Amino acid sequence: MKKTVIGFLGGGNIGGGVWRLLSEMREEIKKRDGVDLEVRKVLVKDIAEALEINAAKGIDIPVGCLTQDYTDVTRDDEIQIVCEFMGGEQPAASYMEDALNHGKSVITANKVALALNWAQLQAAAEKSGAGLWYEASVGGVIPVIRVLLQNLESDSVDRVMGIINGTTNYILTRMTNEGKDYDEVLRDAQRLGLAEPNPAADVEGMDSAYKLSILASLAFHGRVTYGRVHREGITNITATDIACGADMGYVLKLLAIAKKDGNKVEVRVHPTFVKKDHPLAKVDGSLNAIFIHGKYCNDITLQGRGAGDLPTASAICGDIVDAALCVKPRYPSFKNTVEDEASFAFSDNWNTRAFIRLSAVDRPGVLASIAKTMMEEEVSIATMLQKDVQPDGRVQLIFITHPAPEQSLRRALSRLDASICSLEQMIRVED
Amino acid sequence: MKKTVIGFLGGGNIGGGVWRLLSEMREEIKKRDGVDLEVRKVLVKDIAEALEINAAKGIDIPVGCLTQDYTDVTRDDEIQIVCEFMGGEQPAASYMEDALNHGKSVITANKVALALNWAQLQAAAEKSGAGLWYEASVGGVIPVIRVLLQNLESDSVDRVMGIINGTTNYILTRMTNEGKDYDEVLRDAQRLGLAEPNPAADVEGMDSAYKLSILASLAFHGRVTYGRVHREGITNITATDIACGADMGYVLKLLAIAKKDGNKVEVRVHPTFVKKDHPLAKVDGSLNAIFIHGKYCNDITLQGRGAGDLPTASAICGDIVDAALCVKPRYPSFKNTVEDEASFAFSDNWNTRAFIRLSAVDRPGVLASIAKTMMEEEVSIATMLQKDVQPDGRVQLIFITHPAPEQSLRRALSRLDASICSLEQMIRVED
Repeated sequence: MKKTVIGFLGGGNIGGGVWRLLSEMREEIKKRDGVDLEVRKVLVKDIAEALEINAAKGIDIPVGCLTQDYTDVTRDDEIQIVCEFMGGEQPAASYMEDALNHGKSVITANKVALALNWAQLQAAAEKSGAGLWYEASVGGVIPVIRVLLQNLESDSVDRVMGIINGTTNYILTRMTNEGKDYDEVLRDAQRLGLAEPNPAADVEGMDSAYKLSILASLAFHGRVTYGRVHREGITNITATDIACGADMGYVLKLLAIAKKDGNKVEVRVHPTFVKKDHPLAKVDGSLNAIFIHGKYCNDITLQGRGAGDLPTASAICGDIVDAALCVKPRYPSFKNTVEDEASFAFSDNWNTRAFIRLSAVDRPGVLASIAKTMMEEEVSIATMLQKDVQPDGRVQLIFITHPAPEQSLRRALSRLDASICSLEQMIRVED
Repeated sequence: MKKTVIGFLGGGNIGGGVWRLLSEMREEIKKRDGVDLEVRKVLVKDIAEALEINAAKGIDIPVGCLTQDYTDVTRDDEIQIVCEFMGGEQPAASYMEDALNHGKSVITANKVALALNWAQLQAAAEKSGAGLWYEASVGGVIPVIRVLLQNLESDSVDRVMGIINGTTNYILTRMTNEGKDYDEVLRDAQRLGLAEPNPAADVEGMDSAYKLSILASLAFHGRVTYGRVHREGITNITATDIACGADMGYVLKLLAIAKKDGNKVEVRVHPTFVKKDHPLAKVDGSLNAIFIHGKYCNDITLQGRGAGDLPTASAICGDIVDAALCVKPRYPSFKNTVEDEASFAFSDNWNTRAFIRLSAVDRPGVLASIAKTMMEEEVSIATMLQKDVQPDGRVQLIFITHPAPEQSLRRALSRLDASICSLEQMIRVED
């Protein structure tokens, strides 16, 4: 029986999950695939601390497997596959490159290191003949990487839209269901370990933006770098916004959206209202879902756990078996450079509908004035809702516009007469 | 540039779709993958008829490509990839075997030929070193084959549940939305070309059962043959059943269900009520969806077009690019024989809840008598609904049971006192 020796860079939550799956499934995988997968080295920051955490979690990685020297993993002669679970760009990316340069196949769940160092990592893998796999880097167990690289390789994908960050989806779901404000739900999520002590990467949309840059690159067969992704987080979303949207039949989600029309490409992550019967409206809590549209495939929706030690481990171990069987990984067929694809015309003037919430003085002529400003910028109003007079004597006005260019919308909002109304919120709406 | 020559067995609807995709995307695929895909021979039943049909559809396959001799496709020295779109078991299976024996890679969308001849076809592929791909054989563009073969290879899948026949889903969706009876909707579907003149393969569940035998084999890593699948169609479903289910919060679907618990395996296709907020309840019309549960991956839902020339072509062309790039196909890791997996204990005594509709005489004691019979067979009633007295003076009684063994349920139903009630319908309920 062929033995395949594996090393881990990082032994935390996901490393523990992969260890557990490989321990429990080792005999079964021997039977299924004729490969004996053995984990021999696990890089940790601090061995004593790692032993304590693993003991508490019931993860039985022997002390002899633990090391604080990454070269014990990346340069060990017997290790053939290196799995990276450190997170963050560095030193993860340079350790992976070192492993590839030493002929190891590399499997990563790290969207940041991949998104920012994809070209170098792929070049190192191609040069050494080792493999590079990253199914778990986007959407956890959702099989979106293999679907874009293989199933849809000959299709012409023009839209990818997804909920690809579990933390923000958990927060927005609870805000929606419980009518609570952002700060309160965030604190509770932090207490439950569902949001980081520093939640910026999730709540400000960076995590989604890294993932979207990977998905858009694969979907459109050209490099879409992280810097191209327009990004807005959920930190200024209020319970009032969500309630007003619900009154009009909408549910709020942090969506990652990539569209391509001819050579015009737009990539954006922002809070988005979708109709309450939209497939993505029902993707709640820590679920992730990704919707793909192509010229030939029509619509495909993929849904599953976007995080969690075992679902992520399932995706990683699928890659491990591929690597152990020496299946040639499919690399993106576009020229994977550090620059954006030259042939794409990146646009930040996308067409969307918008939800606009204004606080306005309650007197005749106000609505007419607002409508006139909108009209002058060619932003057309589809529906309008006036809420009861507030204690301060002002009214809430909520508009949903027809699709309009982003820049027209911004111009219209900037030109509103401050003496009669103030902009409380603008949230884009996707059909 | 590497040229890859392709032959088609069958030039109908799907063949036309693949021809169109490859024509429109040929230059793009050259750029993406460095392969020039050229279709050189297309086997048709009758050249004159094929020319006429293609002309009507705008499919420009030149007359010189058409042949009525299958060996022009399966034995042509220049053809490397043979795509089979004939449908039906024979002669499709023997033509595919002939192509594999002549060293061609074979790609098929034909679940019948595959389900019934999988072992022989795989053996022929492995012997000659050619490849065998069949992503489009189940669920059209839904990437379920690759997900089971690769992404979930190291997981322990215990449940697959899906809507994998578009025709029956279309019929049931219209019966549900319009309150019409089966015969009327079937006739309309036939008129629209959405059901075959002889609809048996779809409406009696054979199509779903072939597909389920493929999915269950892959999911459980052992051979589950077509003959093992318990199969009930939708031909005796009435508008009344659907309406009564709706009254109790359920939606009717033809589900294909495979479950594994230890070595106990159950595979069944039958009309099934699911709660109206169940993810599969909203999969309407010709959409397909497949739900997978595993020990590590948790829940994955895949949704997309299960049929149609272009979505199916998208899936097939993904396989074609793999074959053209000489990517080694992943074969199932179980021993693919013509027999069922010996280690599986196939069970037909599954536990399900059931929807039972009775017509009963309207007098005291009837309900008590029915409840007593049920209780004696250990079938416990969860909810009950009595509908108004009918013109014949009888009442409709509808029960939803708690989960009970199938055989207990059948015994209970067979023991009901015919002088007081008659069984109108029994439909299983899945959570």
